[in-house]
Amino acid sequence: MSDAHAHHGYISNKDAYLKRLKRIEGQTRGLQNMVADEKYCIDILTQISAVTSALESVALGLLDEHLNHCVVEAVAEGGPVAEEKLKEASAAIARLVKS
Amino acid sequence: MSDAHAHHGYISNKDAYLKRLKRIEGQTRGLQNMVADEKYCIDILTQISAVTSALESVALGLLDEHLNHCVVEAVAEGGPVAEEKLKEASAAIARLVKS
Amino acid sequence: MSDAHAHHGYISNKDAYLKRLKRIEGQTRGLQNMVADEKYCIDILTQISAVTSALESVALGLLDEHLNHCVVEAVAEGGPVAEEKLKEASAAIARLVKS
Amino acid sequence: MSDAHAHHGYISNKDAYLKRLKRIEGQTRGLQNMVADEKYCIDILTQISAVTSALESVALGLLDEHLNHCVVEAVAEGGPVAEEKLKEASAAIARLVKS
Repeated sequence: MSDAHAHHGYISNKDAYLKRLKRIEGQTRGLQNMVADEKYCIDILTQISAVTSALESVALGLLDEHLNHCVVEAVAEGGPVAEEKLKEASAAIARLVKS
Repeated sequence: MSDAHAHHGYISNKDAYLKRLKRIEGQTRGLQNMVADEKYCIDILTQISAVTSALESVALGLLDEHLNHCVVEAVAEGGPVAEEKLKEASAAIARLVKS
Repeated sequence: MSDAHAHHGYISNKDAYLKRLKRIEGQTRGLQNMVADEKYCIDILTQISAVTSALESVALGLLDEHLNHCVVEAVAEGGPVAEEKLKEASAAIARLVKS
Repeated sequence: MSDAHAHHGYISNKDAYLKRLKRIEGQTRGLQNMVADEKYCIDILTQISAVTSALESVALGLLDEHLNHCVVEAVAEGGPVAEEKLKEASAAIARLVKS
């Protein structure tokens, strides 16, 4: 789907998502420092679980906004546009659940 | 546990882990670019699932090395050292499964 | 939400869901037999992963039908009914991702 | 691995595991009743998340006992027996994390 014309749900919270992703980027650098400094495995694993959870929360936020905007708009339009959008959302949810 | 004297299992593959984590760091920057460029929500969600899976694989690798080195060494030592190490490993596994 | 008047999405596939859940019930009995027969831990763990995956697939199917029927109907109605339904769907997705 | 001679870690807690699995079996029957009674999708999804979490906890318990008994015994024996047992444990952990 082309991004140009669309107003994706998350855009109204764009800065907040950028801030959270910036922090996650910092955490992944922190993981590299832990490995470089030969930190204890369990401490690194604990940090990985924290980063994974942070990513999951960002994903759930984006998904919620997607449902509330893109899917709602498509459903209002109805027909194949709605069907496609719902199928896409279900596939994204499945990937999240299985990852 | 102090890191100084210990030889953690993963250290023999340290460079490989650093490389993988560096790539993951790059992927998190990529996520920020996608949000900054107002990319389509589903495409960002797909990329988050990829980053989460990559992190999980790093964690499973570290855990495998931890079992094969730190836990094996502690078990050889026996007693409370072994018990503590096994308890720690189980708690780390639980965090991974639940995250 | 009262179940009486509602036509939930999954009802058109009710028999298929009942069949899948019946099989899952059988698998949980199988797990009990494995423990009763003192089967090897790893084999039991492998079977638990299979049951968990089967349950996840049922959940993803139900969620897809919920989006395509209950959420679509609510969105058509609009207003607080739609908001509530979307909030509920997002919360269910979060529970699935985190479980 | 043949089950006959082995004393798997979980066997000392066998009755507790059987009780938990019996309850999980009952929960899967409950899911069937919810579908048969055409209950609301979200309520069924909530129940599925509860069953999945219960199964995960059983698995984590079994894994902990496996590490503390089967893996410890194999490590004491050393050589290929230990290597095989550790490899097996890591694969089981990966299945749990990915399911």
